[in-house]
Amino acid sequence: MHDLASLIDHTLLRADAVAAEFSRLCDEARTHGFATVCVPSAWVRFCAERVAESSAGVTTVIGFPLGCVSTAAKVAEAQQAVRDGATELDVVVHLGALRDRHYRTVAQDLGAVVQAADGRVVKVILETGALTPELIRVGAALAQSAGAQFVKTSTGFGPGGATIEAVALLRETVCSQIGVKASGGIRDEAAARAMVAAGATRLGTSAGVSIVQGTASTSSY
Amino acid sequence: MHDLASLIDHTLLRADAVAAEFSRLCDEARTHGFATVCVPSAWVRFCAERVAESSAGVTTVIGFPLGCVSTAAKVAEAQQAVRDGATELDVVVHLGALRDRHYRTVAQDLGAVVQAADGRVVKVILETGALTPELIRVGAALAQSAGAQFVKTSTGFGPGGATIEAVALLRETVCSQIGVKASGGIRDEAAARAMVAAGATRLGTSAGVSIVQGTASTSSY
Amino acid sequence: MHDLASLIDHTLLRADAVAAEFSRLCDEARTHGFATVCVPSAWVRFCAERVAESSAGVTTVIGFPLGCVSTAAKVAEAQQAVRDGATELDVVVHLGALRDRHYRTVAQDLGAVVQAADGRVVKVILETGALTPELIRVGAALAQSAGAQFVKTSTGFGPGGATIEAVALLRETVCSQIGVKASGGIRDEAAARAMVAAGATRLGTSAGVSIVQGTASTSSY
Amino acid sequence: MHDLASLIDHTLLRADAVAAEFSRLCDEARTHGFATVCVPSAWVRFCAERVAESSAGVTTVIGFPLGCVSTAAKVAEAQQAVRDGATELDVVVHLGALRDRHYRTVAQDLGAVVQAADGRVVKVILETGALTPELIRVGAALAQSAGAQFVKTSTGFGPGGATIEAVALLRETVCSQIGVKASGGIRDEAAARAMVAAGATRLGTSAGVSIVQGTASTSSY
Repeated sequence: MHDLASLIDHTLLRADAVAAEFSRLCDEARTHGFATVCVPSAWVRFCAERVAESSAGVTTVIGFPLGCVSTAAKVAEAQQAVRDGATELDVVVHLGALRDRHYRTVAQDLGAVVQAADGRVVKVILETGALTPELIRVGAALAQSAGAQFVKTSTGFGPGGATIEAVALLRETVCSQIGVKASGGIRDEAAARAMVAAGATRLGTSAGVSIVQGTASTSSY
Repeated sequence: MHDLASLIDHTLLRADAVAAEFSRLCDEARTHGFATVCVPSAWVRFCAERVAESSAGVTTVIGFPLGCVSTAAKVAEAQQAVRDGATELDVVVHLGALRDRHYRTVAQDLGAVVQAADGRVVKVILETGALTPELIRVGAALAQSAGAQFVKTSTGFGPGGATIEAVALLRETVCSQIGVKASGGIRDEAAARAMVAAGATRLGTSAGVSIVQGTASTSSY
Repeated sequence: MHDLASLIDHTLLRADAVAAEFSRLCDEARTHGFATVCVPSAWVRFCAERVAESSAGVTTVIGFPLGCVSTAAKVAEAQQAVRDGATELDVVVHLGALRDRHYRTVAQDLGAVVQAADGRVVKVILETGALTPELIRVGAALAQSAGAQFVKTSTGFGPGGATIEAVALLRETVCSQIGVKASGGIRDEAAARAMVAAGATRLGTSAGVSIVQGTASTSSY
Repeated sequence: MHDLASLIDHTLLRADAVAAEFSRLCDEARTHGFATVCVPSAWVRFCAERVAESSAGVTTVIGFPLGCVSTAAKVAEAQQAVRDGATELDVVVHLGALRDRHYRTVAQDLGAVVQAADGRVVKVILETGALTPELIRVGAALAQSAGAQFVKTSTGFGPGGATIEAVALLRETVCSQIGVKASGGIRDEAAARAMVAAGATRLGTSAGVSIVQGTASTSSY
């Protein structure tokens, strides 16, 4: 198995993706030993059945990609995902509240999702491309404080993806038990290795197969 | 009041928008007599308080913009939006299920949201830019069948926005009591009038002020 | 009344201070219109009786000055202070946990004190002289997130007191509804005004009388 | 093992000390055979786990360093420390009450801590540098009367540390079953031996390693 494979959340988050694509995603995750498949919440049950006998988990996204959905919606999405077999939940921070410095709103929103996750791994997507370094730090600390196990750079739908600077900043902000997931624009092995060197312990990418095979991908996530 | 104003859902769906921007959006809706403000679900309560004494309603988006979130998440988001004061709910169709021709999945997903809306107006976003004309027809029929009051072209986050062809196709598919909302890329008065001529009865745009003032907007939604 | 008086927490935190000194402190607070007297928790009841008929409140300190006392001790101290008549509680952050980036420990410790305060104003002392600017920001955000109404610079027992830089950094980090208390080394009116100009909305000092009378104090807090 | 080692409470009470420092403290206590580690109450559980298999106990400090915290806070801190594994509790006297000759307040405060200690060793810190010889005598008598097993000179945060005179005065005041702990400013072997010669049966110092290795320490406690 390729040494990067176990770090990869094999990702398919296109709105119009169909069953055959999710099925193939799961097959690839089993073949290559990816950490998880990362899919929208409507596809969790479908994918959980397809990776059940393998080491791959199922990541889904919560409040994705805007983040500014009601806490009630995030909680219900997380609870249903757990029932459907998700092992990891990537929730988008309430970006407007963070930029407004309404930290208590941010924290309570994340805390409610952590509770709904009922022990599953929670990763908090900060959309670092939309934040100042100061707010990246604050957001990461609030995420850790809320009980998340990972902080994550980007949705892939916002302004900019993972950067070396953002990954390093997250790495130095959170404590060593907390993981850092780089996501957004990681298209080849060189980019993947650069993220790991900067401190990433997980990689979100739709180019996982290309990365472990050493070929280039044209995907934008 | 400008003759187009009452057709406009004055829209702000950027993930990183802050309170001051939503506050201004509501002020503009009151000033210009827009039909509603259209905001993410985390901002419904905030906006409902700010348009309470006016004729403007509050539209929010459900399962936005991907659509392929779990039905449980859409239902919870709709219920909370109703509690928070939303008057209209624009829900994104499960696009993958529609493309897979899993029409019962599509219909049950939409029906659950209509029920959760508890009498509020429901508009179904079909993301027409990602569909064939045949699937646009089917999707519109399923939406009407599920109890929605409007079909709507686009999220503004997907491939392509409102087109004359898509609006006309929706118009000829649904019955006359069902409205058609054009959204995505409507930036000036000419575009707005062209949509209305093609059959649109509601316009989703972030350029509402420019449209009623006859100036150009650079916004992309 | 002097314009700075209502911003001052008139402070006496010497371990060996006796009843006559606390009695005089309360008299001065009534005479000059200070916001509160700030006293150790064993003296709250004594002081609360002496300012009862005035506009002055009673601030006490919790887990002071080390901060690294058990949460159970902080909670019990806060609860007893509320019973004894305290109106404001200045709690010291768990500085080691903050420096260790154990943000959840920090947040839970502060959250427990906010809950025990049962509606009284809580100020979080960050001991800014012992922190990097990055950790000052994170600590302030965690304090706000935990439900505190103020962030505060220093105990007066640690390395360095209030600085213009620290006050400005706290001011720009927390939202406008959250106050900033400068404390440690404010000995005359010029220093007090400089802190207010930098963003302080409350001043902790044992030189309150000197400040409002325009004379110099030799006190070190 | 050095003959002084078993007399030393190996002490780390800096507010900003982090986990790595406490971990090292425990390692040193095991290596050199110190009596206990002496740490703030928030670190008791952490340290108790690290000395569990050794002969070293865990001392914590109660109401430290001011002493004039509410009895309820001291009691809660003592109870939690016992639950967390503390074997010895060094509580600071209510110095103001002692100086005010409110001896009943002093005695009840100490008695409540002794009861909360539930059989663990209690040492009463009198802060001798802030007291007259007469009040040192009275304070020591009240401590013994309340059920404490040791009287102790200083917090290290107050005016002056252990002196030969204070240790001798404590020694001649309490009965022979009661120990005397000298603390504050003991930085080398000569100072340690002088304290023992004056009657100290326990030494609180952060320079324990230097003392048993015969080197000088620059620490101030």
